[in-house]
Amino acid sequence: MDTPEKYSGFRAAGGRLSEPLRPELERHRSELMLHKLEAIHAFDKAHVVMLTEEGLIDGESGRAMLAGLLELEEAGIVEARLAAQGGLHSGEHYLTEKLGAHVGGQIHLGRSSADLSGVSRRIVTRDKLLQVLAELNKVRLAIAETASRTREVLLPSYTYGQHAQPTTYAHWLAMWSEVFARDFVRLKAALDATNRSPAGAAAVTGSDFALNRERTAQLLGFDKPLGNTMDATLSNDSFQECAAAMRILAGNVARLAEDFLFWSTIEAGVLTIPDRFCDTSSIMAQKRNPYVLHEMRALSVIANSALTATFDAETGATGQAVLARKIAEEAMWSLFAKALLRLQEMSDLIPSIVLHAERMSDLAENHWSQATDLAGALVRDGGLNWRAAHQLVGSLVRQCEERGLRPAQVTLDMIEAVAAERGMAVARLTPVQLAQALSARQGAYRRRGIGGPAPERVAVDLAAAIDQMQRDETDLARYRARLGDSAAALVRAANEIVAS
Amino acid sequence: MDTPEKYSGFRAAGGRLSEPLRPELERHRSELMLHKLEAIHAFDKAHVVMLTEEGLIDGESGRAMLAGLLELEEAGIVEARLAAQGGLHSGEHYLTEKLGAHVGGQIHLGRSSADLSGVSRRIVTRDKLLQVLAELNKVRLAIAETASRTREVLLPSYTYGQHAQPTTYAHWLAMWSEVFARDFVRLKAALDATNRSPAGAAAVTGSDFALNRERTAQLLGFDKPLGNTMDATLSNDSFQECAAAMRILAGNVARLAEDFLFWSTIEAGVLTIPDRFCDTSSIMAQKRNPYVLHEMRALSVIANSALTATFDAETGATGQAVLARKIAEEAMWSLFAKALLRLQEMSDLIPSIVLHAERMSDLAENHWSQATDLAGALVRDGGLNWRAAHQLVGSLVRQCEERGLRPAQVTLDMIEAVAAERGMAVARLTPVQLAQALSARQGAYRRRGIGGPAPERVAVDLAAAIDQMQRDETDLARYRARLGDSAAALVRAANEIVAS
Amino acid sequence: MDTPEKYSGFRAAGGRLSEPLRPELERHRSELMLHKLEAIHAFDKAHVVMLTEEGLIDGESGRAMLAGLLELEEAGIVEARLAAQGGLHSGEHYLTEKLGAHVGGQIHLGRSSADLSGVSRRIVTRDKLLQVLAELNKVRLAIAETASRTREVLLPSYTYGQHAQPTTYAHWLAMWSEVFARDFVRLKAALDATNRSPAGAAAVTGSDFALNRERTAQLLGFDKPLGNTMDATLSNDSFQECAAAMRILAGNVARLAEDFLFWSTIEAGVLTIPDRFCDTSSIMAQKRNPYVLHEMRALSVIANSALTATFDAETGATGQAVLARKIAEEAMWSLFAKALLRLQEMSDLIPSIVLHAERMSDLAENHWSQATDLAGALVRDGGLNWRAAHQLVGSLVRQCEERGLRPAQVTLDMIEAVAAERGMAVARLTPVQLAQALSARQGAYRRRGIGGPAPERVAVDLAAAIDQMQRDETDLARYRARLGDSAAALVRAANEIVAS
Amino acid sequence: MDTPEKYSGFRAAGGRLSEPLRPELERHRSELMLHKLEAIHAFDKAHVVMLTEEGLIDGESGRAMLAGLLELEEAGIVEARLAAQGGLHSGEHYLTEKLGAHVGGQIHLGRSSADLSGVSRRIVTRDKLLQVLAELNKVRLAIAETASRTREVLLPSYTYGQHAQPTTYAHWLAMWSEVFARDFVRLKAALDATNRSPAGAAAVTGSDFALNRERTAQLLGFDKPLGNTMDATLSNDSFQECAAAMRILAGNVARLAEDFLFWSTIEAGVLTIPDRFCDTSSIMAQKRNPYVLHEMRALSVIANSALTATFDAETGATGQAVLARKIAEEAMWSLFAKALLRLQEMSDLIPSIVLHAERMSDLAENHWSQATDLAGALVRDGGLNWRAAHQLVGSLVRQCEERGLRPAQVTLDMIEAVAAERGMAVARLTPVQLAQALSARQGAYRRRGIGGPAPERVAVDLAAAIDQMQRDETDLARYRARLGDSAAALVRAANEIVAS
Repeated sequence: MDTPEKYSGFRAAGGRLSEPLRPELERHRSELMLHKLEAIHAFDKAHVVMLTEEGLIDGESGRAMLAGLLELEEAGIVEARLAAQGGLHSGEHYLTEKLGAHVGGQIHLGRSSADLSGVSRRIVTRDKLLQVLAELNKVRLAIAETASRTREVLLPSYTYGQHAQPTTYAHWLAMWSEVFARDFVRLKAALDATNRSPAGAAAVTGSDFALNRERTAQLLGFDKPLGNTMDATLSNDSFQECAAAMRILAGNVARLAEDFLFWSTIEAGVLTIPDRFCDTSSIMAQKRNPYVLHEMRALSVIANSALTATFDAETGATGQAVLARKIAEEAMWSLFAKALLRLQEMSDLIPSIVLHAERMSDLAENHWSQATDLAGALVRDGGLNWRAAHQLVGSLVRQCEERGLRPAQVTLDMIEAVAAERGMAVARLTPVQLAQALSARQGAYRRRGIGGPAPERVAVDLAAAIDQMQRDETDLARYRARLGDSAAALVRAANEIVAS
Repeated sequence: MDTPEKYSGFRAAGGRLSEPLRPELERHRSELMLHKLEAIHAFDKAHVVMLTEEGLIDGESGRAMLAGLLELEEAGIVEARLAAQGGLHSGEHYLTEKLGAHVGGQIHLGRSSADLSGVSRRIVTRDKLLQVLAELNKVRLAIAETASRTREVLLPSYTYGQHAQPTTYAHWLAMWSEVFARDFVRLKAALDATNRSPAGAAAVTGSDFALNRERTAQLLGFDKPLGNTMDATLSNDSFQECAAAMRILAGNVARLAEDFLFWSTIEAGVLTIPDRFCDTSSIMAQKRNPYVLHEMRALSVIANSALTATFDAETGATGQAVLARKIAEEAMWSLFAKALLRLQEMSDLIPSIVLHAERMSDLAENHWSQATDLAGALVRDGGLNWRAAHQLVGSLVRQCEERGLRPAQVTLDMIEAVAAERGMAVARLTPVQLAQALSARQGAYRRRGIGGPAPERVAVDLAAAIDQMQRDETDLARYRARLGDSAAALVRAANEIVAS
Repeated sequence: MDTPEKYSGFRAAGGRLSEPLRPELERHRSELMLHKLEAIHAFDKAHVVMLTEEGLIDGESGRAMLAGLLELEEAGIVEARLAAQGGLHSGEHYLTEKLGAHVGGQIHLGRSSADLSGVSRRIVTRDKLLQVLAELNKVRLAIAETASRTREVLLPSYTYGQHAQPTTYAHWLAMWSEVFARDFVRLKAALDATNRSPAGAAAVTGSDFALNRERTAQLLGFDKPLGNTMDATLSNDSFQECAAAMRILAGNVARLAEDFLFWSTIEAGVLTIPDRFCDTSSIMAQKRNPYVLHEMRALSVIANSALTATFDAETGATGQAVLARKIAEEAMWSLFAKALLRLQEMSDLIPSIVLHAERMSDLAENHWSQATDLAGALVRDGGLNWRAAHQLVGSLVRQCEERGLRPAQVTLDMIEAVAAERGMAVARLTPVQLAQALSARQGAYRRRGIGGPAPERVAVDLAAAIDQMQRDETDLARYRARLGDSAAALVRAANEIVAS
Repeated sequence: MDTPEKYSGFRAAGGRLSEPLRPELERHRSELMLHKLEAIHAFDKAHVVMLTEEGLIDGESGRAMLAGLLELEEAGIVEARLAAQGGLHSGEHYLTEKLGAHVGGQIHLGRSSADLSGVSRRIVTRDKLLQVLAELNKVRLAIAETASRTREVLLPSYTYGQHAQPTTYAHWLAMWSEVFARDFVRLKAALDATNRSPAGAAAVTGSDFALNRERTAQLLGFDKPLGNTMDATLSNDSFQECAAAMRILAGNVARLAEDFLFWSTIEAGVLTIPDRFCDTSSIMAQKRNPYVLHEMRALSVIANSALTATFDAETGATGQAVLARKIAEEAMWSLFAKALLRLQEMSDLIPSIVLHAERMSDLAENHWSQATDLAGALVRDGGLNWRAAHQLVGSLVRQCEERGLRPAQVTLDMIEAVAAERGMAVARLTPVQLAQALSARQGAYRRRGIGGPAPERVAVDLAAAIDQMQRDETDLARYRARLGDSAAALVRAANEIVAS
């Protein structure tokens, strides 16, 4: 065995270039790899296992390299690799320094920085997506459970920032069940697009050594190898797909936060965010600033910025994007980290928000959100066509506003007076019909159609949502189990070679 | 029946507001609806059919309205509706003017501008996506066919803009088979997310009239109704998903164009774009500007701009995005139109580009793209470890460049001299081994692993790509047939009511 | 003179290319030029005048071309040029068809499509910017005048969506005076960057005919020629500068709209948007949707989309951006048009919004926005250090909230009880000191420092703002006068040649 | 004096909120402030000086606080403040722990987190802009000097990626002189917009303590206080202006890199990037990847991402953006750091690139970039109108290409044959006229008009560019001197109080 040596890396040690690199250009070797070191380590092991199994390196070398990598593992993957220059080639550095060049110099056979980059990017992305999917399911559960107990909490809905029609808090929450179920589908599709192996594509065209790409893919938990080697290293649309799916999720999180932000204003007074999510001010002693909502809202800023980087990185001809892609990666790792925090907060926040049901009901009942149903009643029981009924109610609302009257104060005489003004013949409603039409609560409860706010309908729709979430969770568990099997197979294969 | 009347629309005719709208604010009624009028018409018909079938309006009214809509159809949907204010409510306008308010005033029962917007947005998006998918398959075919006959056209591959390893034009094309197959999957997923029906969600909460949402969904070709009425009108993430999928497609088209742009420079001289894709200059008489490539490249500018609009439109609390969403729609309709043109051009362009095989081969053979394989030979047959071999070749290339030598001029003595300089013991290759290592063509041909450039491997991979494309095309055909069935069912149902 | 002839343009008629262009690629000749035709016409005239004056074409040809262009003017510049293919070369087309190739064929001497594009882009941008600046000054005036009469309208300010400190409506408006004054400065800087002449740069390097670039610049109202011919046609950063300045303006307009949107909710009830800015709903008869605010808000969507296009268009090496630039132009023309509408609406809206002063005052007085000043009083008169006072008031507010007490109900005993709890020695305030500290109105009025809300301070600051606006308006008038002089000089020079 | 105590900050110690903050929400107190700690320190000092001078705190307290801050300075501003929670309030933390709450509790009198944020953001931005401007001037000098010695290096120019007209390397460089001079103007304008003081605006409305805003502004080197306190803390358009100016700069840097990337391809062979800017590959031993150009190119990815964050952060109503703004700041600090590296590299790179003048001249002479001038000669000396001459040359080029002839092989007979084909009467040029027209070099040298490539013209234009750069550099030096004076005044004022 060589004496352990100080290895300065293939550029510095090499004969291709006659000047040292400007130091600030060195960083791409190491600085940006922190999130990827464990994945790089796994690829190092799988690659050596495959090379050994296929007889592309001799058994002794394979054994020595794998033993070295296991030693590295014990020293701590991140620490040991940071000490060995920290980058894509930290495995080669480590082995070269520990075991000499005649061993360490073999690890990169049939491999390039490009497939190292691609493999590690895909493994990290896969792991982050799996974490996001798991947290997302917890949010879906928190939503469904909170909705189950708020099916009778009345609330106006809004369009253009103005009251639309009466609904319930549970119905609003049930919307988010649908939204986040779609996010699950999109992120799962992104995961499927991600989990293909570039390993063995080398720089662009694969190797003229007879690499076993299926074996490496299997040892790393990939579904299968990517089907064209140039595509494997030089295309990156699946990463863009992840960024887009995360951007959509972030936009949804931000919209949810905006609803809470409005409802938590003093003016709305609809709900209270618990203190652990709030901060106060260094000067304004009365302040309860709902930080958590601002963080949720800001997630879309982070996601939009990461999306911009991810798309912009890929401009230019095939092969030009390599370096810029690292900027996109950093932006995405940061986005994933922030998204996980926000999802965890949401699972805590949603069930613990304090609702002010009386204020909510007051808003729904006293500001004309029932107008649609009064017009409906004038069609059903007053004999008007829809448009006529709609116009009559429009005039009525205007007059009531001018006179300071609330919906509950509307009388049949007032309706008929407006009808007369507009030359409409309207049949007189019964007092019960009028009262039913003017009750926002009854209006919400009457809407029993698919996806409507009636409490019994919401119960049905929530049950379906929980059911879907549980199926998704089962799928996730199976997916993780498969990855666990691959990881175990890699451990086993490496150990067997070391022990041989 | 009323005398036909001049109907000025529900705002102007109504009692809710006391001033006419500022005229420039009127445009959202009509200006932006041009692409959607046919879809609005279909919804008008399906809605009246459903209302009639469910007994929510009387048979006579249903008959009159449907007869009116058929009359409108004969006059030309777009023309007749533009004449009737041109917007979401052009059906109501038309029927009110033709048949009086007691008929026209019934069409909007249980419906709102919001579900009209949503239904028509989804129908138009569905149709555009289907067109894009169809054109995309034609491009995939053109690629596979062109690749089949260029499997022996040698070419250097590129990373960082510099020659990487030798490959073939067909191998490069086969990358695009993979890329566009993924685009197909993404766009198809976006289609599935799109083809859900908001009809019957009314403004936000559905209606207290007993609408049959499944029936309307079925008559309009939707897979099924969206599961929450607020979600149906106020969420728009599936549209963002379309925008993202189109943005990724556009980026891929642009990258393809960039490759051609480089290869069609005078400096590269690799290929010639036929004249029908080129323009000349008003001053520089020698110019052949490859316009088509610049249009393809610019597609990503259009797509990025549309994506920005689509995401930005949805900021703010639930219900705030309604108006801004129209800006996003316009941007997306324009993107779809341009994308279709570009895909059509690609199907013409790719098979008709003239390749200069000699120049391509010269680039591959004479600029050291074979260096990887020389290092590989020194591992296999020279007894070096990979890194040592790689360093040796790096020095050798540098020295050859300094002395003006081409790869074919490398001798075994030169290799051994470099080895000696670097203190390496290298076994002497045979002349045949050296010649094989130095042949870029043989290097490409030796790479027979999954996804590699060897002609026989590319043949296998292309066959799989064509197979997949044909399966995708069959699915598309089935999808279109289902939509045709729905359209026929709508015609039938409307005719039956009119005839009843 | 030749017989008038049908001229099909230099590509079709020319010998460089052997196939007709694919028809969909033709559009860049004409479709996108609509906004630029008048500027193209001016350049045609100025170019011929200069060529004639410099003797680069003979007097007779110059006379004939200018007479032809004047004839075209009488027929309507836009109409006549659309009839003559509508693009950059519509002047040449027109003259060639009317007067034969021996005349029309001379107009393009020493000129290229590139400087035609650049000159017309800069002239249109200049004109749009001047219109925006003029409308912006009207908005600044409307703001200052409205602020002058609302200096005593109390209002809470907001941070994080929660009440911060009391202020006045006028103080809030005065912020916008500052904001829009900065927009003026930025847009004026963009105008200065824009108003440089590329004319005479031809395609890239200028001409070997001795063009007089200063003369053409002067006839077209440019400040002076751009100083490098390649820069003149191939750089476009000044257009990006315009897009960025417009984007910032649009963001400001959107933020102003968001403030109004919140205040116009039923929950806030702070102000009412007049009916002419509102629309109602086709289903919800009670609706008053403040369309104008949604249009203002959406301006930033349009601007962000245009900014994206403008930046993305310029990617790639020098000279690659030519075609994509047209996409950016279209996006910018559309943004300018929308921005002008929004600014006009703002000048109408701001003075006519109805404020509900009682509600505003109630919000400011009864929700603890005065907490900062109570802490301040405890420093000044209670002997506490700032942080102790701040903490004391924080506890006090919490306790009052728990007990349902309003600020006006705070007593000196309550303050001392909290101090005791927290182990603080506080001197007893006088009842007057307490009352003053608890009056939000007095709190606002006490803030007389630079830029504060005290009515007399706001008066001073508004006077300065109006003064600045008037100076800016005077500068604009001078600028327009200079352009008028140039336009007159061009008319005069052309007429003189025609008459010679 | 109190015993030094462990101070946990005003939220934890305070009475407003009853739960500790979720830990992950704490980070905004400290994590993001690293770049701002020195600016925060300066504000702490200036604020205490002003409070003391104005008698708002007693002299003894002022003395103690300033002495404490000087002690902190000696301990190292960044280290000591990180130890004291590291955020906006690290000064208060430090003083409270060292000197007790009765001293430390006074520092925040009349101040808020908001003006701390704003002051420090503006100071950091100012310092970064000044550094960028200084580096930019070095680049301008490197460009001008390199251009001075390359005025006779012939080169084709490009539009649409195809050869346009002949020019020189110096003329191309002179374009960048113009571009970067405009960047200087824009960044200087952004600096002026930035350098206004929010200090004393407190949270939103200023303080009811009689703060001297001019004094604090002066001590911190600001030009003057911002004119409205709400604007001072809640508007952020000047930061957007910086981001936009930096984005434009980054786009220019990227375009310059793209030109070099093309020219450094094997296919172009126009220039060589020195080894210290290049890296090799871990697998492809021949590789010289021009990393520096890829970093320059990627700067626009970083800038676009930062621009997106900066604009998106400011969405929503006034006061909503506070937290998201920190994300924008981080993105901008990172962009500034990267931009500085890239500018430093450019100053080294531009003078050291190796040009291959023979290849450049070959490209210019042998690929028809002289076609424009041949047409010009046919106008001047051949009696054709411009368009006829242009068409003739177009045909001639096509025929020569088909026959494999270079420009130098064109004969007068060939010209006349084409003229005959097209029915044109052309006067015979002299052999000298033909030779002059066909010399690309002479074509470039003939263009002596403003901004043209003739060597003597470029010399004149470069002299003007250097002159402007030197004036800009002098202005910068004066600016820095003014800031130095302010910094000295702050030191002096603090020392005087401590010594009093």
